[in-house]
Amino acid sequence: MMFNGYNEGLVESIRLWLKEDVGSGDVTTMATIPPGHESKGIIHAKEDGVVAGIPVAELVFQVVDPGLSFTPCVKDGDRVTKGTVLAVVEGSTHHILTGERLALNLLQRLSGIATRTRMFVDKLEGLPARLVDTRKTTPGHRMLEKYAVRVGGGANHRFGLYDAVMIKDNHIKGAGGIRLAVERARAHIPHTMTIEVETESLDQVEEALEAGADIIMLDNMDKAMMREAVRRIKTKAPHVRVEASGNVSLQTVKEIAECGVDVISVGRLTYSFESLDISLDLNAVK
Amino acid sequence: MMFNGYNEGLVESIRLWLKEDVGSGDVTTMATIPPGHESKGIIHAKEDGVVAGIPVAELVFQVVDPGLSFTPCVKDGDRVTKGTVLAVVEGSTHHILTGERLALNLLQRLSGIATRTRMFVDKLEGLPARLVDTRKTTPGHRMLEKYAVRVGGGANHRFGLYDAVMIKDNHIKGAGGIRLAVERARAHIPHTMTIEVETESLDQVEEALEAGADIIMLDNMDKAMMREAVRRIKTKAPHVRVEASGNVSLQTVKEIAECGVDVISVGRLTYSFESLDISLDLNAVK
Amino acid sequence: MMFNGYNEGLVESIRLWLKEDVGSGDVTTMATIPPGHESKGIIHAKEDGVVAGIPVAELVFQVVDPGLSFTPCVKDGDRVTKGTVLAVVEGSTHHILTGERLALNLLQRLSGIATRTRMFVDKLEGLPARLVDTRKTTPGHRMLEKYAVRVGGGANHRFGLYDAVMIKDNHIKGAGGIRLAVERARAHIPHTMTIEVETESLDQVEEALEAGADIIMLDNMDKAMMREAVRRIKTKAPHVRVEASGNVSLQTVKEIAECGVDVISVGRLTYSFESLDISLDLNAVK
Amino acid sequence: MMFNGYNEGLVESIRLWLKEDVGSGDVTTMATIPPGHESKGIIHAKEDGVVAGIPVAELVFQVVDPGLSFTPCVKDGDRVTKGTVLAVVEGSTHHILTGERLALNLLQRLSGIATRTRMFVDKLEGLPARLVDTRKTTPGHRMLEKYAVRVGGGANHRFGLYDAVMIKDNHIKGAGGIRLAVERARAHIPHTMTIEVETESLDQVEEALEAGADIIMLDNMDKAMMREAVRRIKTKAPHVRVEASGNVSLQTVKEIAECGVDVISVGRLTYSFESLDISLDLNAVK
Amino acid sequence: MMFNGYNEGLVESIRLWLKEDVGSGDVTTMATIPPGHESKGIIHAKEDGVVAGIPVAELVFQVVDPGLSFTPCVKDGDRVTKGTVLAVVEGSTHHILTGERLALNLLQRLSGIATRTRMFVDKLEGLPARLVDTRKTTPGHRMLEKYAVRVGGGANHRFGLYDAVMIKDNHIKGAGGIRLAVERARAHIPHTMTIEVETESLDQVEEALEAGADIIMLDNMDKAMMREAVRRIKTKAPHVRVEASGNVSLQTVKEIAECGVDVISVGRLTYSFESLDISLDLNAVK
Amino acid sequence: MMFNGYNEGLVESIRLWLKEDVGSGDVTTMATIPPGHESKGIIHAKEDGVVAGIPVAELVFQVVDPGLSFTPCVKDGDRVTKGTVLAVVEGSTHHILTGERLALNLLQRLSGIATRTRMFVDKLEGLPARLVDTRKTTPGHRMLEKYAVRVGGGANHRFGLYDAVMIKDNHIKGAGGIRLAVERARAHIPHTMTIEVETESLDQVEEALEAGADIIMLDNMDKAMMREAVRRIKTKAPHVRVEASGNVSLQTVKEIAECGVDVISVGRLTYSFESLDISLDLNAVK
Repeated sequence: MMFNGYNEGLVESIRLWLKEDVGSGDVTTMATIPPGHESKGIIHAKEDGVVAGIPVAELVFQVVDPGLSFTPCVKDGDRVTKGTVLAVVEGSTHHILTGERLALNLLQRLSGIATRTRMFVDKLEGLPARLVDTRKTTPGHRMLEKYAVRVGGGANHRFGLYDAVMIKDNHIKGAGGIRLAVERARAHIPHTMTIEVETESLDQVEEALEAGADIIMLDNMDKAMMREAVRRIKTKAPHVRVEASGNVSLQTVKEIAECGVDVISVGRLTYSFESLDISLDLNAVK
Repeated sequence: MMFNGYNEGLVESIRLWLKEDVGSGDVTTMATIPPGHESKGIIHAKEDGVVAGIPVAELVFQVVDPGLSFTPCVKDGDRVTKGTVLAVVEGSTHHILTGERLALNLLQRLSGIATRTRMFVDKLEGLPARLVDTRKTTPGHRMLEKYAVRVGGGANHRFGLYDAVMIKDNHIKGAGGIRLAVERARAHIPHTMTIEVETESLDQVEEALEAGADIIMLDNMDKAMMREAVRRIKTKAPHVRVEASGNVSLQTVKEIAECGVDVISVGRLTYSFESLDISLDLNAVK
Repeated sequence: MMFNGYNEGLVESIRLWLKEDVGSGDVTTMATIPPGHESKGIIHAKEDGVVAGIPVAELVFQVVDPGLSFTPCVKDGDRVTKGTVLAVVEGSTHHILTGERLALNLLQRLSGIATRTRMFVDKLEGLPARLVDTRKTTPGHRMLEKYAVRVGGGANHRFGLYDAVMIKDNHIKGAGGIRLAVERARAHIPHTMTIEVETESLDQVEEALEAGADIIMLDNMDKAMMREAVRRIKTKAPHVRVEASGNVSLQTVKEIAECGVDVISVGRLTYSFESLDISLDLNAVK
Repeated sequence: MMFNGYNEGLVESIRLWLKEDVGSGDVTTMATIPPGHESKGIIHAKEDGVVAGIPVAELVFQVVDPGLSFTPCVKDGDRVTKGTVLAVVEGSTHHILTGERLALNLLQRLSGIATRTRMFVDKLEGLPARLVDTRKTTPGHRMLEKYAVRVGGGANHRFGLYDAVMIKDNHIKGAGGIRLAVERARAHIPHTMTIEVETESLDQVEEALEAGADIIMLDNMDKAMMREAVRRIKTKAPHVRVEASGNVSLQTVKEIAECGVDVISVGRLTYSFESLDISLDLNAVK
Repeated sequence: MMFNGYNEGLVESIRLWLKEDVGSGDVTTMATIPPGHESKGIIHAKEDGVVAGIPVAELVFQVVDPGLSFTPCVKDGDRVTKGTVLAVVEGSTHHILTGERLALNLLQRLSGIATRTRMFVDKLEGLPARLVDTRKTTPGHRMLEKYAVRVGGGANHRFGLYDAVMIKDNHIKGAGGIRLAVERARAHIPHTMTIEVETESLDQVEEALEAGADIIMLDNMDKAMMREAVRRIKTKAPHVRVEASGNVSLQTVKEIAECGVDVISVGRLTYSFESLDISLDLNAVK
Repeated sequence: MMFNGYNEGLVESIRLWLKEDVGSGDVTTMATIPPGHESKGIIHAKEDGVVAGIPVAELVFQVVDPGLSFTPCVKDGDRVTKGTVLAVVEGSTHHILTGERLALNLLQRLSGIATRTRMFVDKLEGLPARLVDTRKTTPGHRMLEKYAVRVGGGANHRFGLYDAVMIKDNHIKGAGGIRLAVERARAHIPHTMTIEVETESLDQVEEALEAGADIIMLDNMDKAMMREAVRRIKTKAPHVRVEASGNVSLQTVKEIAECGVDVISVGRLTYSFESLDISLDLNAVK
């Protein structure tokens, strides 16, 4: 939902993040580099992976100084190798150095997420199941991280607590059962919104089906139970979607998909990560 | 610099992060849980590690609803094992569920950082070298992540571009040499501020020493060169501090410390990380 | 999605709205009323209707001064008549007068919306169709106005551009046909999100059905066409919901519902409105 | 006070209002319209009235995307008829659709206010009385709504609690009489500020006159009493202005003006209103 | 307009000002004072003057920590001498030290303004003229500084560009003469607003009178001209107020008042100033 | 740290300050000057001094209207005399008048500070001591005022509580002695940060030296004691810097410098000041 729309929210975040790093001023640069000095900054990969966040890095430099020119050399989603030049930024050395760390911190993290997502998605080649993320994202970075998952070939789960109903164990207890929880939710939400129910047993799957859930999540089930759950759901209500969740790894993702689920959600796409090593080299131009 | 001072900045971040998740409202909870419903939430570790962020989780719940009671069961820096109860939050079920994901997302990340830091620091036992972080922190989370490093037994490098001079290769080029860069910086900064110079050779070390640097960073040097650099610096200017930097791992950190450096900076404390698995179980109390 | 959850966003709006009215200070009250003066303010209806916004008025007074006591005498959704006391606010006269106009402006508008919604909903008694609002709400007041619609017995359409797909004429043209538009949308959105297609002819209805829309909107169709559209949709895809839209009035709403649609959307619930006349009388108590 | 000055406050409101509608992104447009797609949007009236808010609509589109071109075809205050083209906006289809609803919501409301104001003002043709608004405006929209009143030929009452003293019944009670209230106010306020007193009887009018009020408001008086009040005020203090207030309608406004008052204030100009029906049609241009 | 009303704007300023000083944290206090340490801070005058800002200092400490107790020992407007204790603040040493500098910086400046204002006002004893400030206030501090002027016995001129019309030379030129400027202003502004005209000659005074100005300012006139201007104005339009302005000093203020003007405005009340020396001594209590 | 870096923080302050003055609109200008009117504003000095803030004034006009052209005629730090033209601003008369007061208020204050600083610095000609400011700056203006001190030839002390440790009497008491305070601080702070200790006796000087302070402040010592302190410090630890503080005046500053201290801090550079008289004359150009 970014980069071809209205990005005001991201611009505000970038301003906050710049303040965090720059504070009352970049004393080193102010003191050592003459005001008019200009440079060309080469952003390049230091290891192999899938790049994500080129337009974010561009936006960082634009916020710092609209006079900087930024030329992307690859596009988000491209596989890059050690040494690939990702982009070139040119203009005031002061401003390149002010934006450098933030641009790299974002680019490295987003590319790390896209790279890992790509590894999962590649395991699903030829299978219809869709790989999605969760709400276990870094606070303040959800839209960016969910974007990186899409760049890596994945899809998104709901964006927050506001755009879909997800009835978990706690809600079932609070409401007094799945049927009641779904009924109340249906009465309360817009007709444009869906209801997903988290289940841990075949009995709960049946209950969710009868209650009229739009999506049924199979939480931490073993493969046999998952297959049976899928069979029952697809027989009784073919338009209901089935999601698998819980401890999905690169080793297990394919087998899970082969159980026939429509969607597999993976917390660790954003929950722990390896940044992709990327750096910026500066050459004076004036 | 947090948790026994004035935390306004952190409270503002928490409000922004809640907005990101809650948006126009938690439709599931609003619809399924009756308004007056109360619960007790048990926050517990699902794997071993060093916990960090208990006061942050408390602050999240306070921001959501000052009426929630929060009881810590361990304190930041404690080693915990799978199953350890970290804290208990009690009150309105609606408000516990609103804050749950954000509190956990923060607690898991900060504990992950403290846990990894602890592993590095344990390698240095008995040695005088101090382990420090870098500016490769998550945008918007720097103060929290630097706090987690301290909780894990590490120390901090400068907080941003504003509180110390760090002359790197780019500044040296821009200024026309180390001597000129240090001179200009000294003239420009408050007398309360220090100047660190990044060096890659013994010649640069000599230059930095003569220019009057307060701290000399040895960037990516091999052990022999590092030992020689330390010897020269400590001979000529015993009050100058020496920092080692570049590709420090759990395997190499001890050997680097044995070269006699005062400070070792490790980017990967915050740059890539494994969250510590922590979850919240809810029991209805009313 | 308000009033039993986390209302930070509403509190921020109230602060902005108070600033608009109070500016650099309420010169009249500051000058004429002694600082310690206390009063009781009686908020009462001056005409018949359905009240909405009592908790909003309470929040206004709490933001101005947490020391004011506010006692509701009716609850949102109650039918009131001329003279009914809605609530009593007691405490500092200065602070009651500071909040008075804003509390009334909100209460009057929201009650006006609830009152009109109630009139529409009453026409649908015994029929299964659900009455919903649109995005034609007052800028900055959407969540409040959608709340007032629920208070009046209606339900809500999507909250904004972010929580459901609504494919209109312009999107169909841009995408190159309904099928293509639905396909692209399905690939792009989370599996938790639904797709609604706006149609103006039976051919478009058929196209939307085949494309797999979750909801089909019948825009400005006459009754015969509407009945035929409903028949075709319910035959082929019983789980697809049908929405009627366009120039719905108190005179026509029942006939439209009798065509068998699931949902009727009415722009004028929030687009034009009559405020309900409500005022506050002050009695000095000290 | 808008549109030929510094409009920062309005730009901030527009950003907030866009956030309300766009939230985490316009999923429909992002998914269905290709990124580079361009269109021309024709904004036209669907009923007769007085248009207000063309520069506001322009500002909305500028905030969304400074690259959109906006060409007004009429100017604020013009009478338009069904079908009149008000303005044309051209550029990125994504951005036109992002701004469309907000621009229309504002234009429709402001034009509705200007249209109703014009109807009142037309009744006063040839009479010296000035028609003004009140503080019963939509929270967050006061400056815009007061602008629309001026566009419709009316004038403004005070902008808020900060720019003039208005002594009402509650202040009189709190201060212990009109004389005391006026005295205290005069001592407290800048010499550049005026004092208006609300009166309900001829005795109160006399009291206000003696106290030295600058403006006397006749609240809900019948025509005979109003005429007598005007006579007494104009005899004793010709520079004191007289304002009539209370249940002014299109039927009564002329008679009230003929009583000789200088100003007539009408709450319902902004308190309840019919939006003027305006819509935007999109034609692809690329 | 402060301190017995709704002070949200001031609280926001205090938060910003605290951020300026505290930034990423008070490193000295965090490091040296144990977390639970409590103290009593004695705020006392180090020279003679008129105190202003006690409630502002209280608000600073409340914003930092609502748990601090603050006991005023004098009230704003009191004359104090070297050694007078102004207030006592007690509680967390950390929080007292966080707020100390900001509280003192405000108290010293505001007391400096009140002290100087008092000196001017004392010169006018027995004369009817009112001493007022100007818009030459410190950016971001206008409401506080105008409050300090009132505390010192002065009164306020308009609060900003928004609450009164002041026609200066530039406006006269732009409008094409005083008469035209006043006419246009009268047509444009609310009937509750006044018009002041700046004049530099008796001809301009006559013009302003005929144009119907509410207030006439005599700018930099000599005493003879001032007396004549007052005579003409009071003869022709007794309700018009007269303001003297321009290079008013403690030496000349009385003579100017004796010319019969109603108001004397003095820029230097806020334009240049001597802070009153005030400090805070800390005694540990726990 | 301003004017050749990223000035977002300053731009935000300027927006707030404009709001303070302009509020709901500049009624005089809106009413009297026709919309398209253009002028040239000549900013000139009305007394002798050192100018500071030309780029700040430029930024004010840019924030109001990026279409205004601003031409500096002198640069910050230049000595100017009565009548010197400082800058010319040209464009929309409305916008020049909107920014005028704020631009002048800032320029006058900053030039006043630079002028006084210059007077102090001139007294130190030929001596190595550096003149610095303190934290006694105007709330919200610290970065600007510290900039003005540099413009006047001075240097800066720390920027806030966050960028250096300053151990004062209160911290010494809280920590239980100088040695303990310094030790705790050293353990807590980054290795890039320095520790300054405030001392009032030679014993304290010795204690601070032994504790390993980086900077020792001599607070309110007489000249003999100062000379002795300097002697002891420079003998034992030549790299430790010495700062003199307390009641420094134009009369005493030279003698203090001759005691051999490295740094002299002067609160009154920013604590009390005379603005430099500067004004703007407008000539219509269209």
